[in-house]
Amino acid sequence: MALVSERVLSIQSHVVFGYVGGKAAVFPLQLLGYDVDVVNTVNFSNHAGYGYSGGSKTTAAELNAIFETMEHNELLMPTRLLTGYIPGAEALTAVERLACRVKHARPNLVYLLDPVMGDAGRLYVAPDVIPVYREMLPLATIITPNWFEVETLTDIKLDNMDSLHNALKILHIQYRVPHVVISSIPLKSWLAEALPSTIRPPKEPSDYLLCIASSFPPKDSFTNGHSLHQPHSTIHAQCVPLIPGYFSGVGDLFSALLLAHFHPDETPETLHATPLSAAVSQALSKTHAVLVMTQAIANSLPEEERLPSDDELDKLNPLRKIRRMRGRELALIRGQDLIRGIGITHVREMMLWDGFWGDK
Amino acid sequence: MALVSERVLSIQSHVVFGYVGGKAAVFPLQLLGYDVDVVNTVNFSNHAGYGYSGGSKTTAAELNAIFETMEHNELLMPTRLLTGYIPGAEALTAVERLACRVKHARPNLVYLLDPVMGDAGRLYVAPDVIPVYREMLPLATIITPNWFEVETLTDIKLDNMDSLHNALKILHIQYRVPHVVISSIPLKSWLAEALPSTIRPPKEPSDYLLCIASSFPPKDSFTNGHSLHQPHSTIHAQCVPLIPGYFSGVGDLFSALLLAHFHPDETPETLHATPLSAAVSQALSKTHAVLVMTQAIANSLPEEERLPSDDELDKLNPLRKIRRMRGRELALIRGQDLIRGIGITHVREMMLWDGFWGDK
Repeated sequence: MALVSERVLSIQSHVVFGYVGGKAAVFPLQLLGYDVDVVNTVNFSNHAGYGYSGGSKTTAAELNAIFETMEHNELLMPTRLLTGYIPGAEALTAVERLACRVKHARPNLVYLLDPVMGDAGRLYVAPDVIPVYREMLPLATIITPNWFEVETLTDIKLDNMDSLHNALKILHIQYRVPHVVISSIPLKSWLAEALPSTIRPPKEPSDYLLCIASSFPPKDSFTNGHSLHQPHSTIHAQCVPLIPGYFSGVGDLFSALLLAHFHPDETPETLHATPLSAAVSQALSKTHAVLVMTQAIANSLPEEERLPSDDELDKLNPLRKIRRMRGRELALIRGQDLIRGIGITHVREMMLWDGFWGDK
Repeated sequence: MALVSERVLSIQSHVVFGYVGGKAAVFPLQLLGYDVDVVNTVNFSNHAGYGYSGGSKTTAAELNAIFETMEHNELLMPTRLLTGYIPGAEALTAVERLACRVKHARPNLVYLLDPVMGDAGRLYVAPDVIPVYREMLPLATIITPNWFEVETLTDIKLDNMDSLHNALKILHIQYRVPHVVISSIPLKSWLAEALPSTIRPPKEPSDYLLCIASSFPPKDSFTNGHSLHQPHSTIHAQCVPLIPGYFSGVGDLFSALLLAHFHPDETPETLHATPLSAAVSQALSKTHAVLVMTQAIANSLPEEERLPSDDELDKLNPLRKIRRMRGRELALIRGQDLIRGIGITHVREMMLWDGFWGDK
């Protein structure tokens, strides 16, 4: 494994126990050869899914003190930036200013912005972060919103292909984001029916999630510099079997792997692949492999550590949920060879979705 | 590489940039297969050697909130405990209580306590931590004080073999620490002259550091349970070539590797080795290999990033020191194969020092 000589500045949450936020992202990046500068936006005992978390949030003043000292000490020298969970507008604004400074000093900075705001219709940050994230989008090289975060950023309800087209146009053109990756979209019928046969899942669509990667400028204009005159992005997609149950930190791991494998100046070997789609293929395959291992470990635990979700029973006995959560922490340590690419039996190649934009 | 299934609770400093404290310890432990629960006792931009650091210390109340939530959530389940830099007595007392709870719940907990207090005659924590560390010593399985910290804990000035004997007796008998490792002792003449020929360095003693490991009970009584009636510990030692200049985080890396390789229930294959000496041999060899790589990288930097220490010039231009520090951050990422044991050409076996205790 050739080790790169690059440095990622990672700004996200820290938990003592388990693998979300920085704990899900930093170790994979390090394994893949990146020096990682680690800024903790919170220091909590565990992720919120356990019901109780202890610890504290890092204030905007504390973040600024860290950033200013790093600048003074000439230690703000990342080649890549990764930002994730930042729970308040003030702290996020501090990160925005930092991102501006870093990008100004290094215009070809690769910035993966994961606009962590919520999931499945529920916000888990203060609503005042939304406009700050919108302001930050033009700084990003890649964004990795989930379905709900795309809706929140664009104010478009995604319920048909037109709305998906419009949301992507807003992100690419209005917010000038070159690369948008939506990693796990439920395959509702309008979406499943629009898929080309090369991407359509072999079985029941509801057993799969779709991953979409959208690169703007489109592939034909990568070199001609006239991207803004091209109306549409290049879309790649792939289906991944849904692993039932709730796992935390999956998005954080995926984003870290995506950033690690993104090499904008290299031409991928695979036909029709772009630097983005090639990186997503790697990130998707490795994340899925770690999840499969995690599920196998969870399934081998004593029964009381893997009782199924049941809101009523969970409420009567909070330890029921806590133990389930604990058993489902990502198997990053035991799965570290997978992250290094050893034992990945099946690379889930992102496929070109040529007719995505229709005749428009 | 067989991955163990153990969990380390690591409580030490966090820096955004570079590799000291948790940043020097956690990645190696993870590489070697340990899940690590990571408690940050400070969140600073960089280590103190740069001259300026920004950030904040974690208060005792914040630490207690984290520990209490982990206990409530049944997440306090480490098989091993590692504590390092904890800068104030209040925070250290919180860690002491935590260590008591964890040890009470799991009497065979392996606790490596690194009593980080200072170096070369200078304290870099508040003096009121000293009595707290003394109180904590009986909880530890292994301690890794440096020369100055042995003197501070025992109130004995180390300047001849008698004082070294007395200090070790105090640590083993009065403070009931089974294993004491002093990793880098300057080879003053009284010490060099006392060394048996198997350990004596091939060249000028001042070009070497000595590592001493002292296991109590001594090896002959490992199984008979009457250890307290045996007067002396088993001593192993080895010389390591001194690498000139100042590197930060070396002790933190060494302690993490020592903990990772310590397997009290396994019988080492090497003649005369104990579980402690076998682990020290690994930790010493890997730490030295990482240092050699770090030095090679530092030496390859542009001249302005490796200007030698010069107090006057450094004072006139603080960036002189800052750049030197930056160039000397441990090469943990590029050296990760070394930590995994790949490319270690020479294992520095700790040698039995049979006559250490003389005729006494």
